[in-house]
Amino acid sequence: MSRFFSEKHNSLTAYTPGEQPKNREYIKLNTNESPFAPSKGVLEAVREQAELLNLYSDPECTELNKIAASVFGVDTDRILMTNGSDEILNFAFMAFGDKYHPFAFPDITYGFYPVFAKLNGVPYKEIPLKPDFSVDVADYENIGMNIVIANPNAPTGLILSLSEVERIVVTNPDNVVIIDEAYIDFGGESAIRLTDRYDNLLVTRTFSKSYSLAGARLGFGIGAKSLIADLNTIKYSTNPYNVNRMTMAAGVAALKDNGYYMNNCKTIIENREWTSKELKKLGFTVTDSMTNFIFAKSDKIGGKELYLSLREKGVLVRHFDNPIITDYNRITVGTRAQMETLLETVKTILEKGNE
Amino acid sequence: MSRFFSEKHNSLTAYTPGEQPKNREYIKLNTNESPFAPSKGVLEAVREQAELLNLYSDPECTELNKIAASVFGVDTDRILMTNGSDEILNFAFMAFGDKYHPFAFPDITYGFYPVFAKLNGVPYKEIPLKPDFSVDVADYENIGMNIVIANPNAPTGLILSLSEVERIVVTNPDNVVIIDEAYIDFGGESAIRLTDRYDNLLVTRTFSKSYSLAGARLGFGIGAKSLIADLNTIKYSTNPYNVNRMTMAAGVAALKDNGYYMNNCKTIIENREWTSKELKKLGFTVTDSMTNFIFAKSDKIGGKELYLSLREKGVLVRHFDNPIITDYNRITVGTRAQMETLLETVKTILEKGNE
Repeated sequence: MSRFFSEKHNSLTAYTPGEQPKNREYIKLNTNESPFAPSKGVLEAVREQAELLNLYSDPECTELNKIAASVFGVDTDRILMTNGSDEILNFAFMAFGDKYHPFAFPDITYGFYPVFAKLNGVPYKEIPLKPDFSVDVADYENIGMNIVIANPNAPTGLILSLSEVERIVVTNPDNVVIIDEAYIDFGGESAIRLTDRYDNLLVTRTFSKSYSLAGARLGFGIGAKSLIADLNTIKYSTNPYNVNRMTMAAGVAALKDNGYYMNNCKTIIENREWTSKELKKLGFTVTDSMTNFIFAKSDKIGGKELYLSLREKGVLVRHFDNPIITDYNRITVGTRAQMETLLETVKTILEKGNE
Repeated sequence: MSRFFSEKHNSLTAYTPGEQPKNREYIKLNTNESPFAPSKGVLEAVREQAELLNLYSDPECTELNKIAASVFGVDTDRILMTNGSDEILNFAFMAFGDKYHPFAFPDITYGFYPVFAKLNGVPYKEIPLKPDFSVDVADYENIGMNIVIANPNAPTGLILSLSEVERIVVTNPDNVVIIDEAYIDFGGESAIRLTDRYDNLLVTRTFSKSYSLAGARLGFGIGAKSLIADLNTIKYSTNPYNVNRMTMAAGVAALKDNGYYMNNCKTIIENREWTSKELKKLGFTVTDSMTNFIFAKSDKIGGKELYLSLREKGVLVRHFDNPIITDYNRITVGTRAQMETLLETVKTILEKGNE
């Protein structure tokens, strides 16, 4: 830290992304990437843009908003595209949070929410999950704070029904409710259609998981026109050209190839269900995940120990240093072959433990 | 504006980027883009990355920092890559500005500085340029505020010498001095080598102008290790994967092809000097620009009138609605052919005015 760093950041601890090791090849099941390459349409679109990189990208994302509006069934002025969904989440904390407008979110969830809150000087309340890791809707009814809930939640994988989401939105009419749907394409019902009716609901999405574009950085938000207008004011006050040309074209092409990606999601769901069943056979407790990851604990080996053993054998999963979930690991669902290797490696580790 | 927008943003007016009209083809001399396409190495690098977009980018920008370190002669931990240089400028206001640590900058300069300040609740002082539009170094000596100066300045094109920059840095040892070198490759001496000696100096750069990558969004900062560490804390608290895979690879390739780009800069400088001379022949006052744009006023026609007439005839330049510079237009230096068209169009407009 330099002697110039503002004191307002004294309590700030930055987010730690999943490790991206460069020293050896791993089966990477630690950052919830898609195992499927982008569609051919995306490759072509990106290649075409490469020659035009001397020209700025369209700050209004006109073409991308247009196709997104058609795919998601909303008007273009109810969509804002961002440099990954982290950016729109941060924009929302900037726009709607201040010391008089705190945020509430679960204690076990995407670890970035408290970081956004601290960075922007927004007080926050972390609300414990129920013992089964589910979100207790009653905790959020009439809470009188802004709310952000990942739905499905991470790293638990559990989901609220659309009527439960609506209950939270309806009972907090004077606060913004953000539903972070990074994983919604792997199960559950989106709250996007509720944004027609509620001016306090913002749904955020990412192209990183279901659309195989983690490396392109593209996220977006859908909400009432007035919420999106505020978020646009923030965007034009930080980085008007926040989405580059190649990513913008990749997003357009991905939405045109929607069928390919939704099919991949089906395959991932199948692989998730199969792997979960196999892990249960090995004595694991597995949550009812509606995402592209599995959240599981063994009855034979500690969470951190399993993580380290898998790592040593070339399989990366994600372990969180939080006592409530320390027995668990979050395992990204990859291809069937990757899942078979994972299971074989787990078996080897468990057998060794029994020797 | 929604009823949820934080009151802290009451006085915020977002930045207005240069227009990107879609209704017809223009000769675009309004956003200081390079007229030259990216190098072949960039095209290949981007194309290669397209297939890997399902995987996150390297949040540490390892390879890009490595080659940038070698090109700019600093250690890798003294560089931070960002989503355009707007992002690192905003990070700097976030990191080093607060209500006790205001910023000072010229009244005529990059219009984004007051926006960053307001967005982050940082008080600021706008210091008038001298009548000849140059920055008066004496105004900044011992000012006791953080400082940001575009050098060369925009839209005036004028530059401070390295010793003048050093004077500002030396006389403000307890404040951060940011030198925004977006246009430095078109003339003048970079302050990067001063960052070895001064822990309060941050130099920011962009790939948008000299490296033909405006559409890829890549900027960076170079400073003391401790300043860069602070800016990294901000980055990891907002958007750890802020630079996408394709842009990162484009940056690496562009720096490998450094000679191609520096040659393009030479051509642009030649075109600037030639066009300036021709404009002077037509009665224009032209500043001594060290950038890829020309800042010029006619003795025959008002700035706004010329801008509108050029626009109507298919040539876009940038006019600023600020009384101090309202007689002027900022004209991006393009190819020789584009400059010839510009001059012909200007002549036509001036002749019409004489009829």
